[in-house]
Amino acid sequence: MIVETQEEKPAIMEKLHRVGITNLKTVARINWKGRTYTFIPTFEITIDVPAEKKGIHMSRLVESITETMSEAVEEEVRRAHTSLEELGRCIIKHLEGKHPHKRAEVWIKTTLILERETPASGRVTYEPYDVEVGVIKEGNSFEKVLRVKVIGNTACPHAMANNNGKTHIQRAVGELEVRTTFEERIALEDMIEVVESSFSHPTYTLLKTVDENAVVKGMYRNPKFVEDVAREIIHKAKRSFKGKFHVKVISHESIHKHDVIAETWDYFM
Amino acid sequence: MIVETQEEKPAIMEKLHRVGITNLKTVARINWKGRTYTFIPTFEITIDVPAEKKGIHMSRLVESITETMSEAVEEEVRRAHTSLEELGRCIIKHLEGKHPHKRAEVWIKTTLILERETPASGRVTYEPYDVEVGVIKEGNSFEKVLRVKVIGNTACPHAMANNNGKTHIQRAVGELEVRTTFEERIALEDMIEVVESSFSHPTYTLLKTVDENAVVKGMYRNPKFVEDVAREIIHKAKRSFKGKFHVKVISHESIHKHDVIAETWDYFM
Amino acid sequence: MIVETQEEKPAIMEKLHRVGITNLKTVARINWKGRTYTFIPTFEITIDVPAEKKGIHMSRLVESITETMSEAVEEEVRRAHTSLEELGRCIIKHLEGKHPHKRAEVWIKTTLILERETPASGRVTYEPYDVEVGVIKEGNSFEKVLRVKVIGNTACPHAMANNNGKTHIQRAVGELEVRTTFEERIALEDMIEVVESSFSHPTYTLLKTVDENAVVKGMYRNPKFVEDVAREIIHKAKRSFKGKFHVKVISHESIHKHDVIAETWDYFM
Amino acid sequence: MIVETQEEKPAIMEKLHRVGITNLKTVARINWKGRTYTFIPTFEITIDVPAEKKGIHMSRLVESITETMSEAVEEEVRRAHTSLEELGRCIIKHLEGKHPHKRAEVWIKTTLILERETPASGRVTYEPYDVEVGVIKEGNSFEKVLRVKVIGNTACPHAMANNNGKTHIQRAVGELEVRTTFEERIALEDMIEVVESSFSHPTYTLLKTVDENAVVKGMYRNPKFVEDVAREIIHKAKRSFKGKFHVKVISHESIHKHDVIAETWDYFM
Repeated sequence: MIVETQEEKPAIMEKLHRVGITNLKTVARINWKGRTYTFIPTFEITIDVPAEKKGIHMSRLVESITETMSEAVEEEVRRAHTSLEELGRCIIKHLEGKHPHKRAEVWIKTTLILERETPASGRVTYEPYDVEVGVIKEGNSFEKVLRVKVIGNTACPHAMANNNGKTHIQRAVGELEVRTTFEERIALEDMIEVVESSFSHPTYTLLKTVDENAVVKGMYRNPKFVEDVAREIIHKAKRSFKGKFHVKVISHESIHKHDVIAETWDYFM
Repeated sequence: MIVETQEEKPAIMEKLHRVGITNLKTVARINWKGRTYTFIPTFEITIDVPAEKKGIHMSRLVESITETMSEAVEEEVRRAHTSLEELGRCIIKHLEGKHPHKRAEVWIKTTLILERETPASGRVTYEPYDVEVGVIKEGNSFEKVLRVKVIGNTACPHAMANNNGKTHIQRAVGELEVRTTFEERIALEDMIEVVESSFSHPTYTLLKTVDENAVVKGMYRNPKFVEDVAREIIHKAKRSFKGKFHVKVISHESIHKHDVIAETWDYFM
Repeated sequence: MIVETQEEKPAIMEKLHRVGITNLKTVARINWKGRTYTFIPTFEITIDVPAEKKGIHMSRLVESITETMSEAVEEEVRRAHTSLEELGRCIIKHLEGKHPHKRAEVWIKTTLILERETPASGRVTYEPYDVEVGVIKEGNSFEKVLRVKVIGNTACPHAMANNNGKTHIQRAVGELEVRTTFEERIALEDMIEVVESSFSHPTYTLLKTVDENAVVKGMYRNPKFVEDVAREIIHKAKRSFKGKFHVKVISHESIHKHDVIAETWDYFM
Repeated sequence: MIVETQEEKPAIMEKLHRVGITNLKTVARINWKGRTYTFIPTFEITIDVPAEKKGIHMSRLVESITETMSEAVEEEVRRAHTSLEELGRCIIKHLEGKHPHKRAEVWIKTTLILERETPASGRVTYEPYDVEVGVIKEGNSFEKVLRVKVIGNTACPHAMANNNGKTHIQRAVGELEVRTTFEERIALEDMIEVVESSFSHPTYTLLKTVDENAVVKGMYRNPKFVEDVAREIIHKAKRSFKGKFHVKVISHESIHKHDVIAETWDYFM
């Protein structure tokens, strides 16, 4: 006979908001733009625990993931940009039959590879973007959190104004988070586009010399503080999407050993 | 003549909440429990930027840190547990004369080494704890955020109940955050104590065989879910300190490749 | 007209052994056990530079990767365990026509997900393993380096002997590297098996209570020092594979804040 | 009575080259340039285990560190640049009386903060450098490994030649390792100087506008491939120090999402 310690009353009665598993890597096959892709995302899945229960049954959370996976493979989920969040909601739906809870969260972190064209030679190049999707169920309502992290660059306008057009340039990383209702249609690719187009210039994996020249010229034509990048991202996000926005840009300064940060958001915090 | 591009009006007018420098490592000498220690903390310091200014003068933030440092060396700051936050406030005070702002934040991350006694042989052992202190000025009022991260362990009560007293044991990491007024006196050492005493057992750098036996016996006497650890931390924190609490415990499960998480807080989020 | 600075003679004449690109994430589709999988590995590809050349043409290295990728998709590479190294050799073959060199290296890092069965309930569970494959061309000969990193656990035999069968248990990570000729057939799955079977017990993503009990009992039946794990891995590796071996095991001690390490190799270093 | 499982004969007889503790953070006070500094380094300390012994007594390694520390505080070790390696040798000396072994290694990783002067305004600035020192005893002879990691930048000469003096600039990280006899006098500061002076320009924590202008102008006067930086480091190292050298330079390209690497060494590998 199995003892269910989890069902006992704990010595200290305190409600816990998020209990579950994290840093779980597993395979996810989703249909993205009409083709099936295999991802190996990192998952976090949590539920709340009422004050009078000692613990949760962790293996049921894992089962919710694995059962959803097999189903996802069969079902051939259609649209790319909704699939990670639909995967998340599917996992919560499976969990509902398995484990009582009021609040549930699923977080899925992975890397997308998008096809781009180099700026001058017009070659195909594949660019990596880190993304994270969270699906949060509170009572019966669902909301989602979409995050993208994009690498670009900044050319300093202040140094340019003081050095006859010469300036320092560096790699920068921009992050955009949108928190919105589950139904709101927002493609991760469009969020990536908002961030990538806000730097001094986008970056590319493949650059022939003519492309490199185009990027160099482009950066000098478009000098930006990290502040400018952050402002442009939130400005475009407000125009393009419905939701609450959080923007963070980190610039790995080429003239300093430390980084520079600009962060903003449009909600009360 | 120097052009001050930062003072120009930006093309896109958006207020930015946090602009500054991050991941800056520098030396800090503080007087801690009557002795002078040299730390090499990582700093983040940010201010807000109004919609009509293009950027901030980053070097003034760096100067606020370095000037405070030299002063700290002279002044022989007194009390250990307040020193990191006083260092933070000092930096903001220096910044006030240098750069206009409404909101300013200083974050200082470092490692504390505390002297402990081994549980059976009574030897001296030195234990490392990661801590972070944030000082936030909004208008004229200061608040602070104190964070400690403590390594301990959990012995699973469910496996113990089902395997005649045998169970799986693993390293776990507990984090406690307190957000409170600047004046509230809370020692980082006391916060560490709250977390460390909430595991199945504390851990030690030095353990002779008799000590190892004491730790092993102690863990089996005190089986705990990661949920139990989280509940005990927030419970003790509420009893010991005044402020808003956030608790996160991560257990590096010995029977899984993934981690288990329990997180809770006592404010609306 | 484009200036080819790379072809100039450098001021300082020094041969460089490894010049190229690193931390490049891109998509790779390979046929693994008869099914096509999409990976997003991290690549490093380098060549040597003779003393009289200033630099290399970096974009040609990127082209070697991307051209090999498109080909790999068409060709439907057959055997699972050879595919990462064949991908590596393919990249070098493409590079040969593009850029002169004597030595070339390709390193591919990714995560494999393998299907396992839980120890008591016999359910399907998917387990993640980090792997790295290096292909090194020196003159006309190819060698390869295969690396696997496996998570398991250790139950301390010393504490067990001194505490009536009670002991401390923790997560441990074992790494096996094999350096061998390119032709030698060694499956990454077999290397993973060698490491995973050398711990006190393997770990699983999904464990129902009966499975958890089996793992707990198994760990207590099979106490091991980190030293025992390292010895067993190199012993089995020598019996199973032909090549030079390097073994490293790190145990995240549950009674300490630091880790314990055991490392060995069978060649002169 | 305590059972010494470590002294038993293991089931599998295999010599282990490196067994011990790693990732141990503790406090170290050393006298550096006539002033006493507190560091919190990360330690690794290992010894070899003969085929017929099951394990080592880990706590004796910890004791060797802690005893050396208390001594170091009293002794007031003299010269800065030798102190980390003397600390390492002291730890091995303590270990000799505690635990039999043929080979012993101590590795100490920390951050140094050096005082610099900004290039135009002549202000004091404090710069962080990651360093690592290894002391290796084989039989009765000691050798040491010194490593420094320095942040600087590169301005691409190829893009400069093709874009009328405009180019892409980025942060780069240079590493120099020297492996030599224990007696050889090599200051970590001198190794840092070798690396820092080999970039397009050094970087600074504090830069007023006139300093920033000096750095920008300096970078454009001194364009360098990552290959040039690596060549200059090894060339200067050979002229300045006696030993075996390993050089690695990584450039965080501002026009790519990946990094560029140049690596070389002057010994057979």
